Amino acid sequence: MTTDDVSPGEFWFYEKHVPTAGIMLKVGELLACRRSRYQTIQLFDTADYGRVMTLDNLIMLTERDEFSYHEMLTHVPLLLHPQPRQVLVVGGGDGGVLREVIKHGTVERAVQVEIDREVVDVCREFFPWAAETYDNPRVELVIDDALKYINTVRNEFDLVIVDSTDPVGPAIDLFGSPFYSDVYDALTADGLMTCQIDSPFYGSRRIGMIMDTLRDIFHDAGLYLTQVPSYPSGVWGLGIASKSRKNFHEPDKVRYDTLSGTLRYYNPDVHRGSFLLPEYLRRVVYRTGK
Amino acid sequence: MTTDDVSPGEFWFYEKHVPTAGIMLKVGELLACRRSRYQTIQLFDTADYGRVMTLDNLIMLTERDEFSYHEMLTHVPLLLHPQPRQVLVVGGGDGGVLREVIKHGTVERAVQVEIDREVVDVCREFFPWAAETYDNPRVELVIDDALKYINTVRNEFDLVIVDSTDPVGPAIDLFGSPFYSDVYDALTADGLMTCQIDSPFYGSRRIGMIMDTLRDIFHDAGLYLTQVPSYPSGVWGLGIASKSRKNFHEPDKVRYDTLSGTLRYYNPDVHRGSFLLPEYLRRVVYRTGK
Repeated sequence: MTTDDVSPGEFWFYEKHVPTAGIMLKVGELLACRRSRYQTIQLFDTADYGRVMTLDNLIMLTERDEFSYHEMLTHVPLLLHPQPRQVLVVGGGDGGVLREVIKHGTVERAVQVEIDREVVDVCREFFPWAAETYDNPRVELVIDDALKYINTVRNEFDLVIVDSTDPVGPAIDLFGSPFYSDVYDALTADGLMTCQIDSPFYGSRRIGMIMDTLRDIFHDAGLYLTQVPSYPSGVWGLGIASKSRKNFHEPDKVRYDTLSGTLRYYNPDVHRGSFLLPEYLRRVVYRTGK
Repeated sequence: MTTDDVSPGEFWFYEKHVPTAGIMLKVGELLACRRSRYQTIQLFDTADYGRVMTLDNLIMLTERDEFSYHEMLTHVPLLLHPQPRQVLVVGGGDGGVLREVIKHGTVERAVQVEIDREVVDVCREFFPWAAETYDNPRVELVIDDALKYINTVRNEFDLVIVDSTDPVGPAIDLFGSPFYSDVYDALTADGLMTCQIDSPFYGSRRIGMIMDTLRDIFHDAGLYLTQVPSYPSGVWGLGIASKSRKNFHEPDKVRYDTLSGTLRYYNPDVHRGSFLLPEYLRRVVYRTGK
């Protein structure tokens, strides 16, 4: 880009992924800017990524690429669990994970624990799917600190899906050993947890440490990847941990077929492929070799 | 990023991936800026990505993430072919593909056809691996237009690896049916070709068209993916086409073991996983459904 490409009066959003590199998006219209008790919430329009929501100046989702993140965080555990009935979503105030959860006919109750009511309100206003999802009778919205809520439940949820912000600021305790232990206790005997972790490229050390923690607490844990062009490095690491299961590679094909018409990223092939890690990452996640 | 983060006198490199979104890298030192007969070549230092080379203002490689691109473009075909002896590299003046090719003991001769001698010269000067690679006695450098060169060879190469610039400007004919037909003719009976194509996220339509062309000409063709954080969307699509082979999923494990200590991205798992495509891309590549 030369300076000829930038016109007077244009807004550009810049996010640094590391101190000297980042993404830039031209802003069409600033739709919302709110300072809640917890964070700064901004929502703006862009030509190539559609509507974008940031929390504390970090991109949380864009309309253009949220599908790959939400589908992989949700359908991987839902299609591995034999019969997911009770699902807890931690964070995820934008409603994207919930939207995917309620596609599953087996799910009787989906509880969302979001600390910040204003995130839910902004998303209901500006993302059409959010309003629709929160009005679903199987959805239960709890505005509370997930660290406190998770302590009140035992052997209740078949799945816990942690769709948190990054491990800086308010969400940092959602990446620690005490929280994961509480998730373990909140799960039924064959329960599964998935969580968003970090960029494999920029954050492989942090990914390695979190995987060690998960393996200490759970029966088994794994890392899988999805494409998110608007997140640092364009690829994102998702964690999965189980109370009884060792194999994360074989999703339920019959239940997949009932959903497949609604999916743009997830399929059983990409499910399996997402666990097959590049060498630099396999070494960190599984503590092998060199 | 706020304006506080930008200091007077700083250089930033911006590349637009689509009209309103792109990557930004803070430039440490500008090392080379040359206008060759074909293109503008720039080389600069960055803190997080190391040295970066651009051609006509598009990032071609960075020291930090070139390994995932070069390893996947090279080792996937080399470990699928039963005994690759003669290898042709089209483009790839930076020497990254050649560096990977000559790791294979079976390779007796690796010919590189690069149109722009100045790219080779700049890379020999600033990338340590390039000087070393070009001095290898099995390497033969031809400065010529690959479109002309490929016409002069018949049934000669076990592999052709097309490491071109993008299908705009001087490289556009390297993505067309006549060139791919000439590659077909240049290959031995069980020959394979790989080529870089586009971002699956931004360029899926173009990927679909190129895959159709490859399937028209070759016995079979497939698409596989690799992570390249400095390329548009962070994930890149690579094509493979064969004169006789149908299965691209099973690399040679014995030959892999002899190389594995030198590899940071490639392993047989990620080889297989890289062909397992997300749904939006599978539909375009294999012309299935919806």
